[in-house]
Amino acid sequence: MMLNIAKRAKVASQLLSLLSTGVKNDALLKMAEALAKNSERILEANAQDVEVAKARGVRLALLDRLILTEKRISGMSQCLRETAVLPDPIGEIIKTSTRPNGLIIGQIRVPLGVVALIYESRPNVTSDIAGICLKSGNAVILRGGSDAMNSNIVIGDILREAASSSGVPIDAIQVVSTKERSATIELMQLREYIDVLIPRGGAELIKVVKDNAKVPLIEYGEGNNHIYVAEDADLENAIDIVINAKTQRPGVCNALDKLLVHESISTTFLPSVISSLRKSNVKVKGCELTREIVPDVELATEEDWSKEYLDLIISVKVIKNLTEAINHINKYGTQHSDAILSASFEKAWRFIREVDSATTYWNASIRFTDGNQFGLGAEVGISTQKLHARGPMGAEQMTTTKYFILGHGQIRE
Amino acid sequence: MMLNIAKRAKVASQLLSLLSTGVKNDALLKMAEALAKNSERILEANAQDVEVAKARGVRLALLDRLILTEKRISGMSQCLRETAVLPDPIGEIIKTSTRPNGLIIGQIRVPLGVVALIYESRPNVTSDIAGICLKSGNAVILRGGSDAMNSNIVIGDILREAASSSGVPIDAIQVVSTKERSATIELMQLREYIDVLIPRGGAELIKVVKDNAKVPLIEYGEGNNHIYVAEDADLENAIDIVINAKTQRPGVCNALDKLLVHESISTTFLPSVISSLRKSNVKVKGCELTREIVPDVELATEEDWSKEYLDLIISVKVIKNLTEAINHINKYGTQHSDAILSASFEKAWRFIREVDSATTYWNASIRFTDGNQFGLGAEVGISTQKLHARGPMGAEQMTTTKYFILGHGQIRE
Repeated sequence: MMLNIAKRAKVASQLLSLLSTGVKNDALLKMAEALAKNSERILEANAQDVEVAKARGVRLALLDRLILTEKRISGMSQCLRETAVLPDPIGEIIKTSTRPNGLIIGQIRVPLGVVALIYESRPNVTSDIAGICLKSGNAVILRGGSDAMNSNIVIGDILREAASSSGVPIDAIQVVSTKERSATIELMQLREYIDVLIPRGGAELIKVVKDNAKVPLIEYGEGNNHIYVAEDADLENAIDIVINAKTQRPGVCNALDKLLVHESISTTFLPSVISSLRKSNVKVKGCELTREIVPDVELATEEDWSKEYLDLIISVKVIKNLTEAINHINKYGTQHSDAILSASFEKAWRFIREVDSATTYWNASIRFTDGNQFGLGAEVGISTQKLHARGPMGAEQMTTTKYFILGHGQIRE
Repeated sequence: MMLNIAKRAKVASQLLSLLSTGVKNDALLKMAEALAKNSERILEANAQDVEVAKARGVRLALLDRLILTEKRISGMSQCLRETAVLPDPIGEIIKTSTRPNGLIIGQIRVPLGVVALIYESRPNVTSDIAGICLKSGNAVILRGGSDAMNSNIVIGDILREAASSSGVPIDAIQVVSTKERSATIELMQLREYIDVLIPRGGAELIKVVKDNAKVPLIEYGEGNNHIYVAEDADLENAIDIVINAKTQRPGVCNALDKLLVHESISTTFLPSVISSLRKSNVKVKGCELTREIVPDVELATEEDWSKEYLDLIISVKVIKNLTEAINHINKYGTQHSDAILSASFEKAWRFIREVDSATTYWNASIRFTDGNQFGLGAEVGISTQKLHARGPMGAEQMTTTKYFILGHGQIRE
């Protein structure tokens, strides 16, 4: 069955790659409208998913991600409308040069072809990614979480129908409707038909994909993220940023895990930031020096420094200088999102250049690492690898380029 | 031992990423000079390699690729000098935008980090790639062909010494000096230290790498390449282009393998192009229709249409129209280099958009698919994959980007 889906996607992708911007944008607007119009049908399917999940004893945080409401569906529509007004990356001519022999050599942006997504829980991701893939001229195969399968199938049906009424091939969007693990493994291996596979989810999913995939991957990595508070930081603002980064949504990949504090401000800053964190129900661990200043902090272990918490936990370390901060982050971090808080642009720029992460911040909360916050509309995911795409991925990251060479009869001497 | 090399490369890469353009260019010029000055030492080492290869009975074509001469060494120097004058891709700020909340979000070009190359025979590749990797701020680990190991070690020593005299870390360039297969396999798996692995060589090498690599790959694929001669092509020029593409250097990946000819010109064009090909010692196979026109052509099998010949062989097919040509190329090709010969830009642009290959040509020989011909200085290889880099890869393709976010205390609402 997966082979069939992949073959149909491949055929659709050839037509999709040639669609005009107008047709694609019209389809996106129709898709937005169709979701709104059919919200009852979506809510019904979602209620079935929620019931089954409750019966299975799925925990509250996951249940919350699964549940759709009128408001969430209207958010999905809004996201498709935002995608419609973004620039179309396809057909952009990026570079041209004329060679001494008169050949004109250029690069044009084209779709990847067929994109397969394997993701967990949240059914709104289904329409976000369908929209980005359509905008970028790719056919998409969506294998969402098993818990959300009824919701995803109904959302997929609505989007397919709406898009095809604008002239988009029906198989531009396909939702996998089997929960079979073997089918998902098969999907990861259909290299002949699928151009890229993007796993979006927890460590376990990523491991299964890495062990089994034969299709080229874009990795969606963990975030063990740092904020370094330099000696010249605005300490009041630093507390706001740390609290925001740690507590605004602790279960996501761009939340804060580690706080590094310059030693010269540690005796004043640590007591106040730790007290604020505790008021927000954050469990605080720390290095020996932290414990000298705030004695009732639990000792952080070596393992803590490498860990993504996804929870209301933080580890605090006192740092001698910028170099030690950069080295610590490059050693223990996961190259996701890291920030420096400092009054000095010189320090900040050094941090930005030398910290080897997808997103590096100066004086802001790291919670902004997100396609929507970056102005990409929605996001397909956040890449922590270096090849192809790094950081939040929007429509442009779902493209490749090809060289075109315009001659008038040249041969090579 | 590989672990040691990889660790040293990682340390060197951190310093390299921060080197100024001036230091890197100065090093490239010193490297060029050092090769010229030490040509005798290089030729001596190369003579040893050649002697061993002869004794082993290595065939003439391979032997020719292995042999260095004063002229070839001077070509290596020239290539380093050309790399020095190319723009430095590192530090380029690609995009910036200011978000409604005042955050400035930009992307800056940075090196990949540590690049490992596994390649065959030609020792000039050693200095070409060392130059491109230095230009792009990457540390490089070079595992050349076993036949060329003495040459490569001496070239590497000369380059390391010259580069370090300009302030480049000595381990920016490392040549693997063991022929052990197990060491090469180990190299492919050091994911913690090596950011990208590029295999450059024949199908067998690519297979070993694909089966064993844990480091992310950029694939260097085969070229089963096509020229489609449309009904309105300049037929005299078409013969020149076909002969050039097939015979100028038949053993390389951008040579011609398949000739597609529009049926309306087949009766005039086929006899003359086949006669020219035969004069150049090319063995011609063909489809049934070709054999109706030139009866003594051997029948091409289904297998022929998928095959990269790397030899003086060609298969010819009569084609009904542009659509059939595009479909044939997308079905049987390897997405490397394909051309249309036609008087019509409209046909050419359709061919360029719809043929899913790294490089698509209008009215020129496909032998130009090459970093130097494209103006990239040298090339690290030619990518036939869609992710990260597609087509000839120069210094820019050895980079990634990172996001930087400049704030003034923003938190996420």
